[in-house]
Amino acid sequence: MTENTTNNKSPTANLPPLLDLTIDNITPNTIRINSQASDARLKYLMARLVTHLHDFARETRLSSDEWMAALQFLISCGKICSDVRNEFILLSDVLGLSLLVDNINHPTPPGGTEGSVLGPFHTHDAPVLENGSSMTSDPEGEPMLALCTVKDLKGNPLAGVTIDIWETDSSGHYDVQHADRDAPSERCVMKSDEEGRFWFKGIKPVSYPIPHDGPVGKLLERLNRHPWRPAHVHFKFEKDGWDPLVTALYLKGDPYESSDAVFGVKMSLVVELGKVDEATAKEYGVKEGSWLLKHDFVLSTKQETEELRDRLAVEELEKLGLRMKLVDHLPVPELD
Amino acid sequence: MTENTTNNKSPTANLPPLLDLTIDNITPNTIRINSQASDARLKYLMARLVTHLHDFARETRLSSDEWMAALQFLISCGKICSDVRNEFILLSDVLGLSLLVDNINHPTPPGGTEGSVLGPFHTHDAPVLENGSSMTSDPEGEPMLALCTVKDLKGNPLAGVTIDIWETDSSGHYDVQHADRDAPSERCVMKSDEEGRFWFKGIKPVSYPIPHDGPVGKLLERLNRHPWRPAHVHFKFEKDGWDPLVTALYLKGDPYESSDAVFGVKMSLVVELGKVDEATAKEYGVKEGSWLLKHDFVLSTKQETEELRDRLAVEELEKLGLRMKLVDHLPVPELD
Repeated sequence: MTENTTNNKSPTANLPPLLDLTIDNITPNTIRINSQASDARLKYLMARLVTHLHDFARETRLSSDEWMAALQFLISCGKICSDVRNEFILLSDVLGLSLLVDNINHPTPPGGTEGSVLGPFHTHDAPVLENGSSMTSDPEGEPMLALCTVKDLKGNPLAGVTIDIWETDSSGHYDVQHADRDAPSERCVMKSDEEGRFWFKGIKPVSYPIPHDGPVGKLLERLNRHPWRPAHVHFKFEKDGWDPLVTALYLKGDPYESSDAVFGVKMSLVVELGKVDEATAKEYGVKEGSWLLKHDFVLSTKQETEELRDRLAVEELEKLGLRMKLVDHLPVPELD
Repeated sequence: MTENTTNNKSPTANLPPLLDLTIDNITPNTIRINSQASDARLKYLMARLVTHLHDFARETRLSSDEWMAALQFLISCGKICSDVRNEFILLSDVLGLSLLVDNINHPTPPGGTEGSVLGPFHTHDAPVLENGSSMTSDPEGEPMLALCTVKDLKGNPLAGVTIDIWETDSSGHYDVQHADRDAPSERCVMKSDEEGRFWFKGIKPVSYPIPHDGPVGKLLERLNRHPWRPAHVHFKFEKDGWDPLVTALYLKGDPYESSDAVFGVKMSLVVELGKVDEATAKEYGVKEGSWLLKHDFVLSTKQETEELRDRLAVEELEKLGLRMKLVDHLPVPELD
């Protein structure tokens, strides 16, 4: 027989009583009442969230109308979400949050390939293709041969890495954006060979706007920002023991190279396409003069990334500690 | 003939180019690209929003899984919203933001009646009733007579104030929470008379849980918080030239008096019910011994509230300026 002591307890038994609420003590009061969470991480996240949310309202003297407009904006974001559309990821993307979170979780050790935003168009149904296969079914696209390698930080080739590759068709749409999609296209999964190589036939990527017929599009418009992303191909690398890498290669000279709507571009990820020469054309069975993408990717081990992530976290928290200490010199409301 | 110069301009023409994005410069980069907004207020709000959002992620070292969980949470909030349910208002309520925004916009001059949260159950179809009318159709409720006045800060009665009044039925549900609602109940609109009085028959309010079958309810559960609100009656006062007052009166001794799930209770709004005596029973046509709610509300003029709001805003911005100055002593990323 187990005693059900929890259910017999009053729901208010452990709660610290709220104090007479004012504009000055609502933040510590909210943090206090949330402090009964048993999950310490959740408790910390909520405390920082509430602090920033309240500070934002206090600093901006947020008006009731602005508050309501923000809530309506969030509702409309929720309403447009579907199995193939995540407006909140888009929102996170255009606010620079997605890039930041990726950077925090997957910092790049010197010599490693930098990450870029995942975006909302990765799927799990891409066909597994042999090296050398074509991943495109778009006759309008300009053919592009990609010859790539994947190595470790010391330059050793990495075999058996699973690589997800995806790009838009020549109209600037991912397959999932076509209502009549019946099979995956412009996407595939490959494995690197013993020499760390992988190669495939795709099309030269084109720039395209992110979906901007919803609330995020309206926000960009009000900010006088365009919704375009520069031409790119997405890559996602996975191998046991190695830090998963989500990245993309961007074409040099694209008109949106320095104003990507979702902040994905890093200088180290900008590449210049070449042209396939006669010998290469023969070797890979493509037309001479086709576009040629060559790139060497470098992965770090889980351990290498974790060590760097921990070191950067400690540095940031030290900086934050200093900042907090400075802020703490200001009068704060008494709680007891 | 008008020249359409705007459309001929490249969408990137005015955009400051993004710099090589890192964890350290993504915030100023995002603020810069948003800085093309023509609405200065929007520009400021976005700059502070992006700063707090990024600082939150940086300080907490937000993990990719936590980020995704947060986005899923927002999606599920959006999905449950309907004409009669606003999960984002609930979220704002349980995070203390609603109370804060109300306080910022409607600060209370000394002697004025404090505000409380509006909540999601106010409607615009309440019947306009004569003073003395009954606003309830619930035979299960314990009858309560309310005798109230509304005055200005100097104690002069205010005539012709429009007062919205609403409460739950005896089961703890607002009329709109009943699927078979065919007419408004436990709500009405009254006018104060020449002596600033208004009076009505209602029922003794009961405590009730906020809707907790959705994502906000799950969040409260994870925080070991209960979803209950202490028993209360809502009031909303409006009159040209006067600051609109949204408030509520809470019953003293309610088990949730000091742990209201939405932070609505203020000490000055906690009242003790009396009992109707023989003379009053006769005068108002109610049973002797019924519950009696007596309260005097005090409104401030629009000008009085505006002056106070402006003064508090200046004070807060001065505090913030000092805080900013302290934080500015820390190294910040160079932009040029």
